[in-house]
Amino acid sequence: MKCHTRYTIPFVILSAALIQGALARGFAPAPTEVLEYITAHNEEWGKELCDLVNIPSISALPAHALQVDSAAKWVTNLMSSIGLRNVGIFRTSLHHPTTYGEWLLAPNAPTALIYGHYDVQPVDPLDLWDSDPFKCERRDGVYTGRGVADDKGSGILPALHAIQAVLSATGTLPINVKVLIEGAEEIGSPGMKGWIEAHKEMLKCDFVISADGSQVAVDQPGLVLGLRGMASMGFTLTTASTDLHSGLFGGAVQNPLRAMAQLISSLHSPQGKIQVDGFLDDVKDLSASELVDYKRFEELVDVKGELAKVGVDEPFGEEGHSILEQRWSRPTIEVVGMWGGFMGDGIKTVLPREAHAKLAMRLVPYQKVELVTDAVKQHLMSFLPPSCNLTFDFVSKGSEAYLANKDGYWMAAASATLKHVMGAEPVYYRMGGSIPAVAHFKEILDVDTIFMAFDVPDQNIHAPNEFMREGLYEMAHEAFAHLLFEVKAAYAETVPTTERAEL
Amino acid sequence: MKCHTRYTIPFVILSAALIQGALARGFAPAPTEVLEYITAHNEEWGKELCDLVNIPSISALPAHALQVDSAAKWVTNLMSSIGLRNVGIFRTSLHHPTTYGEWLLAPNAPTALIYGHYDVQPVDPLDLWDSDPFKCERRDGVYTGRGVADDKGSGILPALHAIQAVLSATGTLPINVKVLIEGAEEIGSPGMKGWIEAHKEMLKCDFVISADGSQVAVDQPGLVLGLRGMASMGFTLTTASTDLHSGLFGGAVQNPLRAMAQLISSLHSPQGKIQVDGFLDDVKDLSASELVDYKRFEELVDVKGELAKVGVDEPFGEEGHSILEQRWSRPTIEVVGMWGGFMGDGIKTVLPREAHAKLAMRLVPYQKVELVTDAVKQHLMSFLPPSCNLTFDFVSKGSEAYLANKDGYWMAAASATLKHVMGAEPVYYRMGGSIPAVAHFKEILDVDTIFMAFDVPDQNIHAPNEFMREGLYEMAHEAFAHLLFEVKAAYAETVPTTERAEL
Repeated sequence: MKCHTRYTIPFVILSAALIQGALARGFAPAPTEVLEYITAHNEEWGKELCDLVNIPSISALPAHALQVDSAAKWVTNLMSSIGLRNVGIFRTSLHHPTTYGEWLLAPNAPTALIYGHYDVQPVDPLDLWDSDPFKCERRDGVYTGRGVADDKGSGILPALHAIQAVLSATGTLPINVKVLIEGAEEIGSPGMKGWIEAHKEMLKCDFVISADGSQVAVDQPGLVLGLRGMASMGFTLTTASTDLHSGLFGGAVQNPLRAMAQLISSLHSPQGKIQVDGFLDDVKDLSASELVDYKRFEELVDVKGELAKVGVDEPFGEEGHSILEQRWSRPTIEVVGMWGGFMGDGIKTVLPREAHAKLAMRLVPYQKVELVTDAVKQHLMSFLPPSCNLTFDFVSKGSEAYLANKDGYWMAAASATLKHVMGAEPVYYRMGGSIPAVAHFKEILDVDTIFMAFDVPDQNIHAPNEFMREGLYEMAHEAFAHLLFEVKAAYAETVPTTERAEL
Repeated sequence: MKCHTRYTIPFVILSAALIQGALARGFAPAPTEVLEYITAHNEEWGKELCDLVNIPSISALPAHALQVDSAAKWVTNLMSSIGLRNVGIFRTSLHHPTTYGEWLLAPNAPTALIYGHYDVQPVDPLDLWDSDPFKCERRDGVYTGRGVADDKGSGILPALHAIQAVLSATGTLPINVKVLIEGAEEIGSPGMKGWIEAHKEMLKCDFVISADGSQVAVDQPGLVLGLRGMASMGFTLTTASTDLHSGLFGGAVQNPLRAMAQLISSLHSPQGKIQVDGFLDDVKDLSASELVDYKRFEELVDVKGELAKVGVDEPFGEEGHSILEQRWSRPTIEVVGMWGGFMGDGIKTVLPREAHAKLAMRLVPYQKVELVTDAVKQHLMSFLPPSCNLTFDFVSKGSEAYLANKDGYWMAAASATLKHVMGAEPVYYRMGGSIPAVAHFKEILDVDTIFMAFDVPDQNIHAPNEFMREGLYEMAHEAFAHLLFEVKAAYAETVPTTERAEL
């Protein structure tokens, strides 16, 4: 567990008028009594984090469905106890529950929709964990466990606790908040799009605060302007009705593992370029201004060093694109699982009957989920080696990419808040990951999202030994509290009274 | 569990002098009291089979080492109880125990080395078994369980019981026997070659009777003249030091599953021809006489139908070679296992750090294990995609192919015995599987092997739901008993008294 080295931060250009306003009035912090409340509860909230982490709410595994439900109940109990109203558990069709609560008693103030998720990634390979992923521990300055960062400790608890602190210490909130914390983000939020459409009125807001996301480094805040979308599928390739003896039959019967290898190989050129007909059709080159942002990020962050930290000495990606382009704005087709045959120790002389694979695709702006998913399915059928059958185990509905602009008082407030708590000017960047709900909010509610979450890239999210720094966990609480006051101030200064709409 | 259809059997040409002798004197069966002894013990020996099958002696799994030891003790207890002498357990270096016993009190008679194995294949995928593989059952005319055919019921128990029957009913044996039953055949008999070399005197014999092998069909005996050899290896391909998030890193980091797919694909052409430089150099075309044998077998057996029975509607193999050539006399490189990443239900958006594969190669006469193994290793290193590391988890020492000729009184006796018990003339053929010890016996002891084992190709050996027909199990006992008398008669008639060597 290494900390990031300190980066030098150049000045980041914000919308001139907003900057001017912020500079003129100065930052509007949370009152002292709120910050004291946060400090006083640090110990208790650390225990609460471990309580929630110890619920193994793995959305990907059907066997964990009840634990996902338990986590939803845990979250709504907290929502109620801190003073949110209309708290409830919604079930998107077929999938894990979504929790909701609101506090709408601030007149002449904007409404933020706070978003996050209480579900977590699976934990395998379990043998690479140094401690039980569902026995959260606080030691050596960090909390450990699955979900301790993504998203229980990095986002949702700090957001809820900040509301608790402000309400308890001041008796009110500076702005209106709606809080939506879902339980299926890690499986691509199936059902969320339809659910948002069906609850459009309830979710109406001025902007979204995503409590899911991350910072660039421990001392380098960032504001995410773009996310990749995602689609996934699983399929099985079969060659016989039973496993066979590799000696008696081998040579005259198609080997499903070899056939799967050939099929997977056909998806990319040896140089890493996607070979699926139609897949890249809608992908656009970066604009000149985006290229400037990317270059600035590269000056700030040791991009190759980030990879070296996870044991990647030699990056490998699509030729003709920088590492950041490959990670942020080029689409991918990743094999996330592939298996078949004998996987135990030693050797078994078997000619297996079937092979399995799962693909996760990351999509970029202007790609349409359905078009690219169909293109991949078509490719797999066309390139299927002889004497094989292919069946699709599942094909996700997926989510499209997200792209925001830099304007809006919420973005300026987020920037000022991050600078205040982290002591450095935030950098604008993108993330290669996907938060489907954020894309849906843009499409259905027509609102942008500001990302306020406080893990950094070395914290092993989605991997063994996920951890959360104690300092960042506490800072996250302060940041959410400050943001509520600063966004109110930025709103009051920026939006003319006549344009304010009562929601 | 279907029975094979009845085949019409043409006359098979044996060495003319031997046939003449056999025809002149007629078959020399086991005496009536021996056959009555066998019938009387049928029930008891069925239970004994289940006792032995219930010991999960899986040689491939280190966790089963103690059970392999238990099976060795079980076998030596039986050896002692039936009257074998010098019974003992030998440990080949580093590997599972080999059991041995002998009875050498027949003057002026040849010495047979009876060979078999008590170890079994792993049982996964366990969910495809209709019953517990290690709770042997007798029902509907069959015994079920792992090893119930290969090799516990098809060979080793019938051989040992036949010795018991003849010794008990007649007080002596017609020939001398040495019995070698090993515990590592299913993992390629590592250590066996060196052990045979070290025990060359003890194992000295006139011919080998392999109690491992099979018949062509329930009503079609066959005599195996050739076996493929085997070599195996396992390797791991690594691209990072930890699993990564497929969104945050995907696109800029080599995917080990894709790289493994590319590497595995490079081993064969899309048409199934091995692409490894040097691998096929020593492979010879079949002789004209071998082609005649192959054609005869194809007339007897529905070769495509055999494949259809295991769900292979469309055979796939190296172009330009018949199915029998592909199965018997062309080498293979089979992927017997390949895995990595997320293998649970649903999706996990992971970019794994490593991928694994295991290869089992089948070798044909004149190929040298070391040369082809080195060629494959060299190929894998040369074709390794960029930004990957490759490590070999294991590389077997392997065994070379075996090829016998048709002459010898033992071959004539085996033929006459099979015809007597199965009612049809045996056909000469090869098997695509490997029995490393048989190749070592040829190389080190300079003796040929006759194959006397009584499973047939539909009995799911090495696969879920392995079974042994009750009728074939009982017939196997009679066959071994008859063979002891017939081989003595053939020897007496064929080998001049002056040429007989006392062992």
